[in-house]
Amino acid sequence: MAISAPEATTAETPAARPFGPAAALACRECGERYELGPRFACEFCFGPLEVAYEFGAVTRERIAEGPNNIWRYAPLLPVPGNVAELPNMNPGLTPLVRADRLAAELGMEALHVKDDSGNPTHSFKDRVVAMAVEAARNFGFTTLSCSSTGNLAGAVGAASARAGFRSCVFIPAGLEEAKVVMAAVYGGRLVAIDGTYDDVNRFCSELIGDPAGEGWGFVNVNLRPYYAEGSKTLAYEIAEQLGWRLPEQIVIPIASGSQLTKIDKGFRELIALGLVEDRPYRVFGAQASGCSPVARAYEEGHDVIQPVKPDTIAKSLAIGNPADGPYVLDVCRRTGGAVGRVGDDEVVDSIALLARTEGVFAETAGGVTTGVLRKLLAEGAIDPGKETVVLNTGDGLKTLNAVDAGVTATIRPSLDAFREAGLD
Amino acid sequence: MAISAPEATTAETPAARPFGPAAALACRECGERYELGPRFACEFCFGPLEVAYEFGAVTRERIAEGPNNIWRYAPLLPVPGNVAELPNMNPGLTPLVRADRLAAELGMEALHVKDDSGNPTHSFKDRVVAMAVEAARNFGFTTLSCSSTGNLAGAVGAASARAGFRSCVFIPAGLEEAKVVMAAVYGGRLVAIDGTYDDVNRFCSELIGDPAGEGWGFVNVNLRPYYAEGSKTLAYEIAEQLGWRLPEQIVIPIASGSQLTKIDKGFRELIALGLVEDRPYRVFGAQASGCSPVARAYEEGHDVIQPVKPDTIAKSLAIGNPADGPYVLDVCRRTGGAVGRVGDDEVVDSIALLARTEGVFAETAGGVTTGVLRKLLAEGAIDPGKETVVLNTGDGLKTLNAVDAGVTATIRPSLDAFREAGLD
Repeated sequence: MAISAPEATTAETPAARPFGPAAALACRECGERYELGPRFACEFCFGPLEVAYEFGAVTRERIAEGPNNIWRYAPLLPVPGNVAELPNMNPGLTPLVRADRLAAELGMEALHVKDDSGNPTHSFKDRVVAMAVEAARNFGFTTLSCSSTGNLAGAVGAASARAGFRSCVFIPAGLEEAKVVMAAVYGGRLVAIDGTYDDVNRFCSELIGDPAGEGWGFVNVNLRPYYAEGSKTLAYEIAEQLGWRLPEQIVIPIASGSQLTKIDKGFRELIALGLVEDRPYRVFGAQASGCSPVARAYEEGHDVIQPVKPDTIAKSLAIGNPADGPYVLDVCRRTGGAVGRVGDDEVVDSIALLARTEGVFAETAGGVTTGVLRKLLAEGAIDPGKETVVLNTGDGLKTLNAVDAGVTATIRPSLDAFREAGLD
Repeated sequence: MAISAPEATTAETPAARPFGPAAALACRECGERYELGPRFACEFCFGPLEVAYEFGAVTRERIAEGPNNIWRYAPLLPVPGNVAELPNMNPGLTPLVRADRLAAELGMEALHVKDDSGNPTHSFKDRVVAMAVEAARNFGFTTLSCSSTGNLAGAVGAASARAGFRSCVFIPAGLEEAKVVMAAVYGGRLVAIDGTYDDVNRFCSELIGDPAGEGWGFVNVNLRPYYAEGSKTLAYEIAEQLGWRLPEQIVIPIASGSQLTKIDKGFRELIALGLVEDRPYRVFGAQASGCSPVARAYEEGHDVIQPVKPDTIAKSLAIGNPADGPYVLDVCRRTGGAVGRVGDDEVVDSIALLARTEGVFAETAGGVTTGVLRKLLAEGAIDPGKETVVLNTGDGLKTLNAVDAGVTATIRPSLDAFREAGLD
């Protein structure tokens, strides 16, 4: 099945190319190329496949004329030129919040929060699922599936409903109530697995080879090469929202590690295409101490990730055996960044800090990135004088139990009661 | 304090005009005009005050060049020309979802869902609070306050954090947990009142005349004329997102009724400014049966609203004595629309319908509008052949208990268990 020359590039018009500028799948390890198809591992070396492109001319002006969502970057993604007209959740162009009050509290000069809770199901997962939906449509799949720590389940459920797919998603038992309800409300099947996320993931790999899984697109398994490209849109948006400029430092959460590596890929594409100036940027990864295999490998100077059994409130980052861990280490080391970790108490503190200073109610993953930002500033790894972006990839409404917030007082509706409670 | 000629219009540059194109406050009943200030009721007839404008030239092109939020419509709002540079939540430009699958199920030809759950705190309230923040800044208030059924509390908390105000918000005891946590997490004071929303509202009116409330901007009391204008942005966005065209029919929830009357005001402004073609549109109001004083008045042909004690799961619409009820009746009758109501069971059904067909997880208020759409279609009041917009003004994550959704099954991570559960 390996091919020597990309095939899709011979089609004439963008609309006739179901994967747009995507030319082939290429093995990240050995470089072997494959036709665009529902495959994810190299037949020769078992390395992960990713999308290789042959980009046409892409200009800032053309992007600016596009829709107010990720499809403005369609010429940089494995999607057809008419993607904006197809039924999809159309996520993206979430706010890049100029975080002056948080910056002041941290002693920083220029800080922004990329707040992905503004996506349709309130996490960055809508970006990756939007790609998987287009790939599934192209491959003729009729059911969408995934293994999920919660946010992905909701994103797949919603996108399946909008685009007219059946869905069956798998989660570890014991997730936050909000994530369970949100995954189920769209009417697809939701199956809880007694085990960790890594158990769920292994089960999905089995199911994919079984007749029961025929016709199913597992967004983060057999559609993973397409799916993962969705994270590049975070890079494009941040650059465009900064006025077509790369940030000097960026703090990104690590679950599987895919998001971090794809943001780096996105930045490098923008440089290669001449859309931004080629200047250094440093990438920092963030984990919760209760699930920090990448941070530990970074600290110990290892290249190999030792899997762990997760124990943290940051369930959306609780992947004990992160597939892209080694590539994360590469990116952070190459760009002069680092990988940091914070305990659950610091996660909770940091959620409150972000809420109190910027009015952004982050889920635990946003507490992890904000906490690691604070920690790496204190350690001197992050420069307070350089323009920095920190990611919030999810929504506090989905991890309500992580925060301790409630009413100040309950009173009768009278001025006397107001004074008696010492509220005046 | 009444003035005969507007004062603010004499300033030379937009930046020098803290209220932009706003020229005065005018009594909705007797037309008496007042200087722009923190006042909300006419001194002569006690009628509500609203903002009167002297618009300059406004073009579609200038709007398109603006930011991807409500501030693109700054030339139509009581805000300074440089508003986009000030610390604010910058809500708006939420998705207008082309709801083809829901339309098919309802037998309609062209239906769109305006999904305001995409706002920063996931309800339309971010729009109105954004206006109140600018007014509070201009008037030198240091604390933001409100009476709230829940969504407003979160919006005021977040905006106060972002813009650097203290906050103290008042809610009826017994609100949904998510709304309570979201109102408290931003660090301001949150006071629960033993009573209904109407009790909370009365208490706030008392507090405003008391020394304890000095320096406080109550966004929906003494800042109400500015605050309420934020709902006009829904009208502007819908028209722009339809390609600068008014919808033929629109279904809007009724709480105080302000949103509905301001959307109508926004449509009329667009016509007057030549930004859209002047063609008829019909406005439909939606209430939950357990709090439907406006629907009842409509059905009975009355002009006066008889207050009720709310009893519905649609708590964000549970205002038993809606201030703008009579104006809602005017708009719905003038445009050839209607006011409908549905019971709580239909609200729950309609939340599921919207989620299942379009991947939009609405709060109960969105179940009310979708339910009323369905009901008025069945009754023949809404024409299935005309282009229609239905509003979802809040987020299902805030009213989780309203829906009955959970896992299909819990299994061990094995194909055998998958088959035993009948999932294959």
